[in-house]
Amino acid sequence: MPASLTLEEAEAVLAAAKAKAEEIGQPMNIAVCDDGGHLVVFARMDAAIKVSVDISQRKARTAIMMNLPTDALSGITQPGAELYGLEWTSGGLVSFGGGMLLSRRGDTVGAIGVSAGSVAQDMEVAAAGVAALPKTRDK
Amino acid sequence: MPASLTLEEAEAVLAAAKAKAEEIGQPMNIAVCDDGGHLVVFARMDAAIKVSVDISQRKARTAIMMNLPTDALSGITQPGAELYGLEWTSGGLVSFGGGMLLSRRGDTVGAIGVSAGSVAQDMEVAAAGVAALPKTRDK
Amino acid sequence: MPASLTLEEAEAVLAAAKAKAEEIGQPMNIAVCDDGGHLVVFARMDAAIKVSVDISQRKARTAIMMNLPTDALSGITQPGAELYGLEWTSGGLVSFGGGMLLSRRGDTVGAIGVSAGSVAQDMEVAAAGVAALPKTRDK
Amino acid sequence: MPASLTLEEAEAVLAAAKAKAEEIGQPMNIAVCDDGGHLVVFARMDAAIKVSVDISQRKARTAIMMNLPTDALSGITQPGAELYGLEWTSGGLVSFGGGMLLSRRGDTVGAIGVSAGSVAQDMEVAAAGVAALPKTRDK
Repeated sequence: MPASLTLEEAEAVLAAAKAKAEEIGQPMNIAVCDDGGHLVVFARMDAAIKVSVDISQRKARTAIMMNLPTDALSGITQPGAELYGLEWTSGGLVSFGGGMLLSRRGDTVGAIGVSAGSVAQDMEVAAAGVAALPKTRDK
Repeated sequence: MPASLTLEEAEAVLAAAKAKAEEIGQPMNIAVCDDGGHLVVFARMDAAIKVSVDISQRKARTAIMMNLPTDALSGITQPGAELYGLEWTSGGLVSFGGGMLLSRRGDTVGAIGVSAGSVAQDMEVAAAGVAALPKTRDK
Repeated sequence: MPASLTLEEAEAVLAAAKAKAEEIGQPMNIAVCDDGGHLVVFARMDAAIKVSVDISQRKARTAIMMNLPTDALSGITQPGAELYGLEWTSGGLVSFGGGMLLSRRGDTVGAIGVSAGSVAQDMEVAAAGVAALPKTRDK
Repeated sequence: MPASLTLEEAEAVLAAAKAKAEEIGQPMNIAVCDDGGHLVVFARMDAAIKVSVDISQRKARTAIMMNLPTDALSGITQPGAELYGLEWTSGGLVSFGGGMLLSRRGDTVGAIGVSAGSVAQDMEVAAAGVAALPKTRDK
């Protein structure tokens, strides 16, 4: 069984996140990447801000690179904190919430990044995507 | 009526391109951007090469920036030709086929970029996406 | 009717901003971009600092990318605040005042970025440019 | 007498280039920079391709950096030629025609870069800008 998620699975994650964004009335940029941080699917909803094309992808990639959700990085990247400057490494990372790991039986298979709302909204929509990842895979 | 395509329209373009890629048996990276070159939707099919995550997006953006399909650039960017060196401008462009404009009644509303197969395959799949753009819009 | 502003409109915005800068005696860099963040007109007044060639353009582009005036970003990008680190995304953004949206009937058609004075001066000059955008267009 | 051109002079250069572009019916991006390669004025005419926002500025800056018109670089930057790879230095240069020096009594005071047409058209429009530089200055 390959470690990384398939396109079909990524589409399921994206669809669930998009449905949540519609439910809360906040247009979003939603990116799903594989276990190497490479983009699999992306959608920008009508009226979602353009800056988040980049930020949503960076959030997903950051989660993969750090093997952590991005909200775990906020505190430790502040001025004076241990990882101050982390964002300028690895081609550019993001240290605020909205990037979450997609895992199956303890293995990271990808990540989702959501951006365009408040950080709390971004995290709510990302979590809806995470919950939609099929938990088993036969092939 | 806004000049740029909507998410729903971009999804229709992506779906048609993906169907064509499946039909010819070549996994692809497919990107659709708006009339300013900003990504709207993207999908990487299973087994499509990762390098094309970037190339497909650049092809779509190049078509917007040049207001031309990218295959029109191949000849004029060769060593000795008029625009040799074009690819290193504007944040990085692509000068081989697979990027095509999405137009409606003469107005550019977006672009599609396809990458991972031969250039001929990329162009065939992109053309399928172009053909799927709804020609009228009521809203 | 295209969504984005024309060169003639951008020139009117630039002229009004420049007149205000002369009135307050502060040489400025003034950039006007379209609704995709692409530069339309620019002027650097004699004795205006060179660093603002870049900053004024980034302010205009940031307003487009965030769909907000740049002064709205100051608070939320401070250390400890929600979007700390925003400036390092999307090719480089600016989070202090002087970038403002150009809108017509609720649609963003472009943005102006002004830089070289104090932030208050930059905002005053940008606002003069915003006020000069023709509100209707016949063609 | 300062070596660099003034805003007023740059505006005269831009206006003449723009008039020539209108005369030949080719919408252009026109950039005028000072003797340090820093942008002074810029205009993108309606329907001019977006890629040339960057290319026109690079042409002007390249002319300053090399102290040569950019068409002088085409031959010497080809594969196998002496300066192959020049374009990747100094933040990115351009080696095709359309960038020309603005000089007064043997001193370089700035440069003009024009892009969006054929190279021959770009050079014709740039030359019109060069011809419009006031030859004397009293202040």
